[in-house]
Amino acid sequence: MVERMLAMAANAPTTGNMQLYSVIITTDKDRKAKLAPAHFSQPAIMNAPVVLTFCADFNRFTRWCEINDADPAYGNFQSFISAMLDTAIVAQQFVTIAEMEGLGTCYLGTTTYNAPQIAEALELPELVVPVITVTLGWPDEHPVDPGRLPEAAFIHREVYADPSDQRIRELYKEKESREDSQEFVAENGKKTLAQVFTDVRYPRGNNEFFSKVFMDFIVKSGYKLPY
Amino acid sequence: MVERMLAMAANAPTTGNMQLYSVIITTDKDRKAKLAPAHFSQPAIMNAPVVLTFCADFNRFTRWCEINDADPAYGNFQSFISAMLDTAIVAQQFVTIAEMEGLGTCYLGTTTYNAPQIAEALELPELVVPVITVTLGWPDEHPVDPGRLPEAAFIHREVYADPSDQRIRELYKEKESREDSQEFVAENGKKTLAQVFTDVRYPRGNNEFFSKVFMDFIVKSGYKLPY
Repeated sequence: MVERMLAMAANAPTTGNMQLYSVIITTDKDRKAKLAPAHFSQPAIMNAPVVLTFCADFNRFTRWCEINDADPAYGNFQSFISAMLDTAIVAQQFVTIAEMEGLGTCYLGTTTYNAPQIAEALELPELVVPVITVTLGWPDEHPVDPGRLPEAAFIHREVYADPSDQRIRELYKEKESREDSQEFVAENGKKTLAQVFTDVRYPRGNNEFFSKVFMDFIVKSGYKLPY
Repeated sequence: MVERMLAMAANAPTTGNMQLYSVIITTDKDRKAKLAPAHFSQPAIMNAPVVLTFCADFNRFTRWCEINDADPAYGNFQSFISAMLDTAIVAQQFVTIAEMEGLGTCYLGTTTYNAPQIAEALELPELVVPVITVTLGWPDEHPVDPGRLPEAAFIHREVYADPSDQRIRELYKEKESREDSQEFVAENGKKTLAQVFTDVRYPRGNNEFFSKVFMDFIVKSGYKLPY
């Protein structure tokens, strides 16, 4: 079923129809145990029956060029970006298909943090970089809708209309006043919801540390950076 | 209708529910004329009634943090990657919704090439980087299905099974033998389909030049790189 859905998802458009991605299906318990620490041992890895790792992949295409008297030059930033966009697009197409089949899906945001460990666990070759992980299973709960910003927050007509401070307060008012947001602030001993993001969830130290880890890994994978 | 579909697409999941994207809707003819050269004057920009530019956006979130006594640190590579993935995911969700409504969509692969000109045309502020452009309209043709690689090319079980040269030849055989592929090779005076990609469509010089342009633009937008 997973392979059938992945084959359908592959109808999603990609850069020059190059399909610059690969997907690793993990169902084996021992393999999951190798992956789990890279995802900070989030329970979804061990508990979901299927873990999918979507990888930006210029390996297959480059090798095809090499055996066809062509001179591939895809170990660079622009090519990596194309592969990453292809990968995200096919991942979301898969998620839509899976949810339409009644499955539950969860994106894990940890893939670009610990890409080196994930690559080792999945034996990824050169020019293959893991960027998205989706866990999959039949849902046994219906999580509360986390809500979204009003569309005026992210839709702009003709030019980007940079909002005033007052406008930003209005756009985030509903999000801040949610009961779960307020619990989040209280639990973490913070004064504002924004502080939960900057001090706890996505703090400076982590962002900067994992920027270095990820960029170093991309270079090690064969993409010459910065250029 | 476009705004309604964008609001639906915004149900797509994003990193920490931060919704790190913005979408600029372009319908004005003069504004399109400003955008067109950045897309190498592909006719879809002027001919399609609607052009959507999906941007990785940490501007809104950072400003929300700043006015809420928080210390945002999102001008880095990891944060940019998160925003770019969010953006690709919401773009594909939008495309799915639009196609289900009977609209025709086309991704333009030129957005990350000429990001500086696009940012100027759309007046993008700091921390906002255009990454995907989708043109939109009621379709008046049914293009030939360009085909996809067999699923064995991109699906791997448990670990990445690096294919042999012989296996790669098999996986690309159908693509190479298509009539349109063979016309492509002949028109360009090449010997193999791979050479059309490496010499004509995505050649070394372009890839390397636009790697530098895009990375410089990301830095100029406020993301510190390499880290």
